[in-house]
Amino acid sequence: MLRQDDQIPLYVQLKESIRGSIVNGELKFGDKIPTELELSEEYKISRITVRKAIEELVEEGYLVKRQGKGTFVNKRKIERKIVHFLGFSDACKANGMKASSKVIKKEIIQPTSMDKKMLQLEDGDAVIYIQRVRYANDSPIMIENNYFSYKTYHSLLNESLKGSLYNLLEEKLGIKPAGSGELSIEIVRAGEEEMGLLNVGSGEPLFYMDSTIVDENGQPVHRGKQYILGDSYKFILKK
Amino acid sequence: MLRQDDQIPLYVQLKESIRGSIVNGELKFGDKIPTELELSEEYKISRITVRKAIEELVEEGYLVKRQGKGTFVNKRKIERKIVHFLGFSDACKANGMKASSKVIKKEIIQPTSMDKKMLQLEDGDAVIYIQRVRYANDSPIMIENNYFSYKTYHSLLNESLKGSLYNLLEEKLGIKPAGSGELSIEIVRAGEEEMGLLNVGSGEPLFYMDSTIVDENGQPVHRGKQYILGDSYKFILKK
Repeated sequence: MLRQDDQIPLYVQLKESIRGSIVNGELKFGDKIPTELELSEEYKISRITVRKAIEELVEEGYLVKRQGKGTFVNKRKIERKIVHFLGFSDACKANGMKASSKVIKKEIIQPTSMDKKMLQLEDGDAVIYIQRVRYANDSPIMIENNYFSYKTYHSLLNESLKGSLYNLLEEKLGIKPAGSGELSIEIVRAGEEEMGLLNVGSGEPLFYMDSTIVDENGQPVHRGKQYILGDSYKFILKK
Repeated sequence: MLRQDDQIPLYVQLKESIRGSIVNGELKFGDKIPTELELSEEYKISRITVRKAIEELVEEGYLVKRQGKGTFVNKRKIERKIVHFLGFSDACKANGMKASSKVIKKEIIQPTSMDKKMLQLEDGDAVIYIQRVRYANDSPIMIENNYFSYKTYHSLLNESLKGSLYNLLEEKLGIKPAGSGELSIEIVRAGEEEMGLLNVGSGEPLFYMDSTIVDENGQPVHRGKQYILGDSYKFILKK
């Protein structure tokens, strides 16, 4: 029920009411919300007021309009800040979600020219390749491909690698990943491997993030190539 | 022709040869390149050498593999650095491309709550909304929605707005956009408006970048909501 005599504008009251239902789970991802007319009758307010509330909820990402179909509750995105350096486990924690991992590959491979450059390897140096699927609240969110210098990080091969790699590096090797060196973000389409590991259809849009992670002295720790579900993720670069 | 007795490894020679053909336009976006077997016969080198060259060109974004179909020349992406602040006109220039614009809308509107917050507006302040399509070498690349405080920027309404807005702000108002305040990047799918303005099909993946641009004193200049073709763009956040 909205309060007509309140200091708070009616559209803000309606907005907070709808947002509340989304946050407490009463309205779920994919639910259709009532039309402008229905809401204006239900709350006894003008359609202009309803429209303003809906527009702001769309702008803030809580709702999404589908041409000719109506307005729906949007998928919740994990907000990942990369201003101050934040790994996936920390990003999940900050969003109130449980992070988990499944190790797919753990191999010793030859580096590409780009690996050599990004990891500052010498000729003949091998690389440890670790591929994991990362989950938030048990849903697959991204494929994480990490490349470490074998020379410095070979002891990783004896670890389970299921938890936070960064905690492990700090505890076992005293190395603290502190920020990113190079970092680029593109959109790619899911191919066979991504379809299988992320359980999505062919061509699903994914973020592709390629980066070098460095320690507190600016030394490269690893290269990371991540394929991230486009509809579940939002990069916050500055706030 | 590759030089067997050269200091430069054969796979690097092959890589440079293919990359050269892409850069000089001999091989174009969408062209299928010969199979591993064909290349190994043509250049009289092993398939392993061919594979390594192809893998690196795929990794560097020059080529793309399509499951069961072969390897193709990839679409060239505009690299846009957002470490040091860089607008679209400058990004095109840095990529050797010609930037142009078409003004779609130029209106005075009421701000949303988010606009008010991001532009630090007072109650009752109006907003100038400028929508433009930006082109690189005459191809539409993004829809740019800019929001300025009417109070400070109303003189923009008398300008043509076809060139760089930032040059205009500096010349006419002595305001120099210097960096971004808030900045987030998401993936969205093209709806009716984007399909029409960017000439893409329904559901085409787009970057959606929402940011506040500030001047040298950290004062907000404008809010920008950009919809950018996913297959034409690469954000470089650090290099």
